[in-house]
Amino acid sequence: MKRATFYHAGCAVCRAAENELVRAMDRSQVSVEIVHLGKQKDRIDEAVKAGVESVPALVIDGNVFHINFGASINNVRLAMGPSEKDQEEVVAGMRAGWGIR
Amino acid sequence: MKRATFYHAGCAVCRAAENELVRAMDRSQVSVEIVHLGKQKDRIDEAVKAGVESVPALVIDGNVFHINFGASINNVRLAMGPSEKDQEEVVAGMRAGWGIR
Repeated sequence: MKRATFYHAGCAVCRAAENELVRAMDRSQVSVEIVHLGKQKDRIDEAVKAGVESVPALVIDGNVFHINFGASINNVRLAMGPSEKDQEEVVAGMRAGWGIR
Repeated sequence: MKRATFYHAGCAVCRAAENELVRAMDRSQVSVEIVHLGKQKDRIDEAVKAGVESVPALVIDGNVFHINFGASINNVRLAMGPSEKDQEEVVAGMRAGWGIR
């Protein structure tokens, strides 16, 4: 069984790809996971690591297929704002710089 | 039954898309025709009319999905050389210009 992950950000281009292309995949051959990076920003790094440069993208057994162009992964990341880890690091840096414990 | 046409030009990017993505489509939902524009240059105009700008591309019920980027459709057309119709027009134009019957 092949494994596929469809990364998207809820955009119109993403929805069209999901509705027409991803829904037409043979689920007896491929197990498809759908990941909305706008709602699961902790999965953005995983997508980048897999080679995803823009959404929508379908990763099938490690091969990345960018389908049309909705948004760059960097813009998805920017739109999501800093992660909690990033926020904590910024606050820790400010505390350290200002001598606050 | 949905109808899909996969346009490609035999390039490595095209073959990956065909092997991983097109082969994983559910043929009970979608009837897929595979068109090698390098061998069927008379189908290039049809692909352009459908909205195909680059190959590989999958057109599902009129919706165009460009999958990664192998080559622009213009480069496919250039690589194929002029069609027989174009060749005939060029020869007819030369004959007319030079007064040859």
